[in-house]
Amino acid sequence: MNSVKAFAPATVANVACGFDIFGFAIEEPGDVVELSRRDEPGIVITSIIGDEGRLPRNAEKNAVTVVMLHLLKHLRIKDLGCEVILHKNMPLGSGMGSSAASAVAGVVAMNELLGNPLTREELLPFAMEGERIASGSAHADNVGPSLLGGFVVIRSYTPLDIFTIPVPEDLYCTLVHPDIEINTKDARFILRNEVSLKNTIAQMGNVAGLVAGLMKADYDLIGRSMVDVIIEPVRSILIPEFKEVKQAAISNGALGCSISGAGPSMFALSRGIDNARKAGEAMQKRFAEAGIEAGLHVSAINKNGAMVLAE
Amino acid sequence: MNSVKAFAPATVANVACGFDIFGFAIEEPGDVVELSRRDEPGIVITSIIGDEGRLPRNAEKNAVTVVMLHLLKHLRIKDLGCEVILHKNMPLGSGMGSSAASAVAGVVAMNELLGNPLTREELLPFAMEGERIASGSAHADNVGPSLLGGFVVIRSYTPLDIFTIPVPEDLYCTLVHPDIEINTKDARFILRNEVSLKNTIAQMGNVAGLVAGLMKADYDLIGRSMVDVIIEPVRSILIPEFKEVKQAAISNGALGCSISGAGPSMFALSRGIDNARKAGEAMQKRFAEAGIEAGLHVSAINKNGAMVLAE
Repeated sequence: MNSVKAFAPATVANVACGFDIFGFAIEEPGDVVELSRRDEPGIVITSIIGDEGRLPRNAEKNAVTVVMLHLLKHLRIKDLGCEVILHKNMPLGSGMGSSAASAVAGVVAMNELLGNPLTREELLPFAMEGERIASGSAHADNVGPSLLGGFVVIRSYTPLDIFTIPVPEDLYCTLVHPDIEINTKDARFILRNEVSLKNTIAQMGNVAGLVAGLMKADYDLIGRSMVDVIIEPVRSILIPEFKEVKQAAISNGALGCSISGAGPSMFALSRGIDNARKAGEAMQKRFAEAGIEAGLHVSAINKNGAMVLAE
Repeated sequence: MNSVKAFAPATVANVACGFDIFGFAIEEPGDVVELSRRDEPGIVITSIIGDEGRLPRNAEKNAVTVVMLHLLKHLRIKDLGCEVILHKNMPLGSGMGSSAASAVAGVVAMNELLGNPLTREELLPFAMEGERIASGSAHADNVGPSLLGGFVVIRSYTPLDIFTIPVPEDLYCTLVHPDIEINTKDARFILRNEVSLKNTIAQMGNVAGLVAGLMKADYDLIGRSMVDVIIEPVRSILIPEFKEVKQAAISNGALGCSISGAGPSMFALSRGIDNARKAGEAMQKRFAEAGIEAGLHVSAINKNGAMVLAE
């Protein structure tokens, strides 16, 4: 095979109560990576479309190629020559798992180019290295769902233990991206290192409730469990109008609403696509009233994750 | 109706990772409460069997009758006269939910005597008042499962939000009670009020894993998730031979093993009754090697909770 194209979807990490342990993928948008073999050895980024020139073009510094270099090193392949085109279809630093989508599309494309020596699950640690380059922390709550699809739980990081749980058929995600930017490193920096035992217990109760709610298809329980007493109270101060936008979502049909990843994007979960759209429009409108333009995506939960696209 | 008899089972609270939010009931042992109407108003404890004279006989100070008084007050019944006999069939301060079993048997018996004005679920806040008297804290992780049966999750205490999740058919509990005593108030007192964010995340991952493992009937995941990085490291120092007994359980077929409630009882979960027995015998033997006698109970998860017994 001489060329390949792969798509990896945007993701919502944390999902209210599940900081660093929950994430799910949506249908759209997603990044696309094109790979073509070339005669000289080495990986070269020939073009990045949609990043406004902001991402590094050096293959050793960009998440999309760092994951390929890790994969090639693991497979002891030294002489591969390859040109990379990255189509960035989502904003950077948006809380939509932008760096994860690039890393996952990159590693899936490279694995395909090589004839799929590794399984999807085996690609995960390589994709996580992309996150380390992009955000300083090799977390899996974006790359996991972007790679595998579905609602992903990371039970443990050492050793890595990740699994998916079923989601109800009629669950839809609203993702609203206000046109402001938060650096993931900053968003981690402001978190406190200690949590009260009381808040830990409350958060564990909501984690248990969200898993059970999704698996039982109990929409009310899903909504009641979308409560984050640890991270949201701190990070939401970085998002103008957070409380009002959240209230707009819930008053307009959403089961619950919180920050997507490190923000500033906000997500809601709703029963039925009509509620998801109505909630999204209300959120967008509330941002607009404060003079903030916001992009809107309404989507089912993506069950399949990254895809190799037809040549 | 002039007399009634009710049984409420022993329970395992916390279940490794789920401090204050998880609990399940076992089949045996359990406390039995007998109520008989009498002509004079007022609730009188006429006999307690099996407590070696240690529980208060004053109806306003014993969990078994405090719950009845709360229920009568709620129902605005002032003139009821009633004699109470309590059969204590499990040791006090054992971590087997002894006070919860008495409180639940008491409130279920009284509700039955009155013709069941309240549902099972509605009795929960009254049973929790029994825990407040007995341990200083109105937690629900023992009274919930003793009352309702099954594997119980307390998502939230304010407002109270409790639900049950299915457990795999072939899951068995081993409960080993070493002949030492820990006061629940002391066991709470030694806990730290702050938890590191890192440990909070690890614990949330295990909470999610245990709920998903139980609901998927994924026994390996259940075992991997029975990890408590917050409470067990502190409370286990109160239990002699804790590490060795835990290791004996896991080396002899248990999926996982931890402290039952506030201890000193230890529980294990296993796939199949044979593994549960083998693990229990190994745990008992390990305690015996340290000169500690230990009682052993092997049981399926109790699906029905408290029962009114035939007259």
